[in-house]
Amino acid sequence: MIQERLALLRRAMAEKGLDAYLIPQADYHGSEYVGDHFKIRAFFSGFTGSAGTLAVTAKKAGLWTDSRYFLQAEAELAGTGIDLYRMGQEGVPTLDAFLKAELPPEGTLGADGRMVSAARGLELEKKLPGRTLAFSEDLAGLLWTDRPPLPKAPVFILEERYAGKSAREKLAQLREQMGEAEVHLLTALDQIAWLLNIRGGDVQCNPVPLAYGLVERERMLLFIDREKLSPAVMDYLTGLQVEVRPYEAIGEALDGCAGKRVLLSTKEVNYALYSRLAGCAEIVDKDSPVLHAKAVKDPVEQENLRRAHVKDGVALAKLLYQLKTGRGPQTETAVAAEIDALRREQEGCIGPSFTTIAGYGPHAAIVHYHATEDSSIPLERKGLLLLDSGGQYYEGTTDVTRTIALGPVTAEEKKHFTLVLQGMLDLSAAVFPKGCCGFHLDALARSPLWRQGLDFGHGTGHGIGYMLCVHEPPIGFSFRRTARYDTERLLPGMVISDEPGVYIEGSHGVRIENQLLCRESDMPGFFCFETLTLVPIDRDAIDLKWLDAAGRERLDAYHQRVYAAIAPHLTEDERRWLKEATRPL
Amino acid sequence: MIQERLALLRRAMAEKGLDAYLIPQADYHGSEYVGDHFKIRAFFSGFTGSAGTLAVTAKKAGLWTDSRYFLQAEAELAGTGIDLYRMGQEGVPTLDAFLKAELPPEGTLGADGRMVSAARGLELEKKLPGRTLAFSEDLAGLLWTDRPPLPKAPVFILEERYAGKSAREKLAQLREQMGEAEVHLLTALDQIAWLLNIRGGDVQCNPVPLAYGLVERERMLLFIDREKLSPAVMDYLTGLQVEVRPYEAIGEALDGCAGKRVLLSTKEVNYALYSRLAGCAEIVDKDSPVLHAKAVKDPVEQENLRRAHVKDGVALAKLLYQLKTGRGPQTETAVAAEIDALRREQEGCIGPSFTTIAGYGPHAAIVHYHATEDSSIPLERKGLLLLDSGGQYYEGTTDVTRTIALGPVTAEEKKHFTLVLQGMLDLSAAVFPKGCCGFHLDALARSPLWRQGLDFGHGTGHGIGYMLCVHEPPIGFSFRRTARYDTERLLPGMVISDEPGVYIEGSHGVRIENQLLCRESDMPGFFCFETLTLVPIDRDAIDLKWLDAAGRERLDAYHQRVYAAIAPHLTEDERRWLKEATRPL
Repeated sequence: MIQERLALLRRAMAEKGLDAYLIPQADYHGSEYVGDHFKIRAFFSGFTGSAGTLAVTAKKAGLWTDSRYFLQAEAELAGTGIDLYRMGQEGVPTLDAFLKAELPPEGTLGADGRMVSAARGLELEKKLPGRTLAFSEDLAGLLWTDRPPLPKAPVFILEERYAGKSAREKLAQLREQMGEAEVHLLTALDQIAWLLNIRGGDVQCNPVPLAYGLVERERMLLFIDREKLSPAVMDYLTGLQVEVRPYEAIGEALDGCAGKRVLLSTKEVNYALYSRLAGCAEIVDKDSPVLHAKAVKDPVEQENLRRAHVKDGVALAKLLYQLKTGRGPQTETAVAAEIDALRREQEGCIGPSFTTIAGYGPHAAIVHYHATEDSSIPLERKGLLLLDSGGQYYEGTTDVTRTIALGPVTAEEKKHFTLVLQGMLDLSAAVFPKGCCGFHLDALARSPLWRQGLDFGHGTGHGIGYMLCVHEPPIGFSFRRTARYDTERLLPGMVISDEPGVYIEGSHGVRIENQLLCRESDMPGFFCFETLTLVPIDRDAIDLKWLDAAGRERLDAYHQRVYAAIAPHLTEDERRWLKEATRPL
Repeated sequence: MIQERLALLRRAMAEKGLDAYLIPQADYHGSEYVGDHFKIRAFFSGFTGSAGTLAVTAKKAGLWTDSRYFLQAEAELAGTGIDLYRMGQEGVPTLDAFLKAELPPEGTLGADGRMVSAARGLELEKKLPGRTLAFSEDLAGLLWTDRPPLPKAPVFILEERYAGKSAREKLAQLREQMGEAEVHLLTALDQIAWLLNIRGGDVQCNPVPLAYGLVERERMLLFIDREKLSPAVMDYLTGLQVEVRPYEAIGEALDGCAGKRVLLSTKEVNYALYSRLAGCAEIVDKDSPVLHAKAVKDPVEQENLRRAHVKDGVALAKLLYQLKTGRGPQTETAVAAEIDALRREQEGCIGPSFTTIAGYGPHAAIVHYHATEDSSIPLERKGLLLLDSGGQYYEGTTDVTRTIALGPVTAEEKKHFTLVLQGMLDLSAAVFPKGCCGFHLDALARSPLWRQGLDFGHGTGHGIGYMLCVHEPPIGFSFRRTARYDTERLLPGMVISDEPGVYIEGSHGVRIENQLLCRESDMPGFFCFETLTLVPIDRDAIDLKWLDAAGRERLDAYHQRVYAAIAPHLTEDERRWLKEATRPL
């Protein structure tokens, strides 16, 4: 079937004179998660992973993906004739090297320019001198006959008691920050939603509508499917001098920017839109001021977040009670279903903030494991269960990981659990001067692991939106410099996860994650973190040999806070259990 | 007097058609310390600090320097008509902004191109469009009538029992690393000295000769004053296929590079030399392979360094014994003289590796304080004395700071001392994965201070040469990204200082510095540090309230090592004192 689809694509490529065609996993907005409408790469390759790019030439087809997906891609690509290129492995050519080698000197590379960022398109122009980029047509998409339509979830207003600042204020502030630019092109879905205090449901787990925005001095144009807007929302937008245009009309509207100064970020805006701005007076290429404004949570948002975390803590305490007393769900998928259900029972929760990860035993060592009916294994009364989940509440977005001892655990498992805990606590207790970036603090979480010759391959933490994306740029903690965590300064009001881990392939995995709020400390010029998450950490998995005195004190104090906040919302039995679970070490 | 000199300079500028003239503090090699011959800026401004640039126009004269020198510059510039531009202070224009504002649109900026790096010259070209850089003549230098001559210290060979690898091996390795470049221009004095296993005495505290090097495939040209070379050294160089040319002949030699590929670093090579390479086929602008090779100490060098630190520890123990028992020197300058003398008594020590810093009481809060006859204050039997000093030994370069309680110290002084100690010990005990940079680890030293709302403005540590410069790029620990400490990876064999501090203006200062050797840990893929320095840390200044259990253990273990290594080389009385000074906490 894949082979037939590729044959179809190759015929169309030949007709259009394309020597190669690129199909990334993307939507038109650079979103992390994409809807079914955009899963063209899966349609033409069979590979369903969340990251990976397909490149097709007349003779060859290759898929580039990272180590998380090597096994899955191998299985899904079997028999398709598509070669798997394992990114990062020694000797494996990069996609760009492949394109350079396979494209004739004056060849043409095709792609849907809406699925490629402007920055990436410009990079390809540079790296492929002499070649032509034909990035204007959705050639592959047009061949997809039963393609799912674009989503049409209704838009709703996030009231100011949740959002804090009004959209009017946010627009006014943005217009001030636009400097000399007359127009600001916004395409990141969470930025548009944040700016207008609206939410939607067009992207899985991210409550955002598909839309583009053009902010001018006096009005804003919002490009969105009008069917998603109720009369009340229409009135609300009109009141903000926001004019609604069809989603597809963004291209033509950009033609109207001729002669103007346009502010945009080539990292975010897609190549097709960027290309239509050739006639504008100047492109000011930098981060949208919204990116930074959104990262700093308003005092109202902060206060709401504290409430959301009580609810989140209650949902998790109920699940932990079940699991620790042996009356809980019996499989990985059942655990995921149960925590999702318990969250939805909380008032103001509209669903998960990402697909729950519930990995038992060796599955916990697979960092991006998602249990399916096929993979799900029964839980036994021993070993470690890793549960990483979060909710979307009107009061904010949560993201929490706990690793739970389902019965006896080995000395090694306890050692790893405790070292991860020490690192998580050390980072959360950091005090640091104004000017500090997440990069500066990363080693605090890793040091206890490093000292035992352990480490983990993922970042230590990421920014988190407010009822928006669970992974929110630009801040986070990282050892690597690939993200911007080495240049973006931590500021009071920012919310970041703190989630070190240890993963032993084929054996077990540990991750413990709390959500931190950056705040002023009581010492001038120094900031600190407030832990927002209120979920007990499994004392049964701790070996005190690996926890220092400060760590013990911190955990005891944390558990006291957890009990005080959560206990009032539990049943008698649950409360009794929680008392035990949070008693001092 | 300064005004007369400036008038002279302005007349010469007018004759040459120069609208502005720059006089930095530099030699022709980008050295950190410069000899008297190069102190032109002091001659024309009166300002004698080690960092700062003078800019002169027909009407204005300004001096740019950093916060270390604000007070000194203010005093020294008084009455000269030169304006002080305090770098880094808000509202103070940068030198480049000044030049842009003061130079006419088609104006000409003059300077001695040998005193400006190529990178800086190219930057000025970019920042001053339309203007001409006349960087070929030493206009100011020529007006300096009683200018001290270039130094003529004899060159000596550093035997292989000290240097480890032979110069022949080093040259062979360098030629391999030169890749497609046919010529490598070396101008950093320590790189030339390291490569050829020679040393000299042309720069204060840095045992290097003034020289340029041109490494070709079959031979190397060394541009150096032949008077510095004994027949034995000449023979040695001839044996290495090194041909000696006059120091001044480097320029003409570069004309001979026409049509060739030349490897050089624009960060190191001066603008005048760079400009003479216009005719070469290609300039490969990157770090010299020598920079990185030199940073990784050979096993022979490592073993020698351990020996050098025993000697250094003996010299310091003798001084500490005097100071702690009240029979030591009585002023700051006397302390500096005494430690310099005690070091010179050690076999193989040729002098200090930098000007000793001995600051008592409030003077210790001035980070780059050097006591002079005028400033030196008598030591009392109370408070803290900060002593930062080092030696040049055939077995390597040392750099150590101790802060010493001369009698009773306040609770605050003890707190600061202990927090600094905790940070120093935490960093020295770090275990970290391959790939780590100094930047990653910096927070380990600062965290104990940050937690109390304290910090320090200098880097946490710097690379150290082997009988070369005490500040050796490219590695170090820093919070800032101005150095390359965020990209240069720590490798086994590298030697770095670990020197956090606290400075309370007008009151006291604390710094504790050990020298660390990066090594493989016993866990594959992880590195750690061996502490080279062997000098007791003053127990009398410790408040155990601020030192954690791990810190105590580390200090006790360290003191045991110190006693075992140093005691055999002391007198009976000194040994008895050291036993007490290194007893467990």
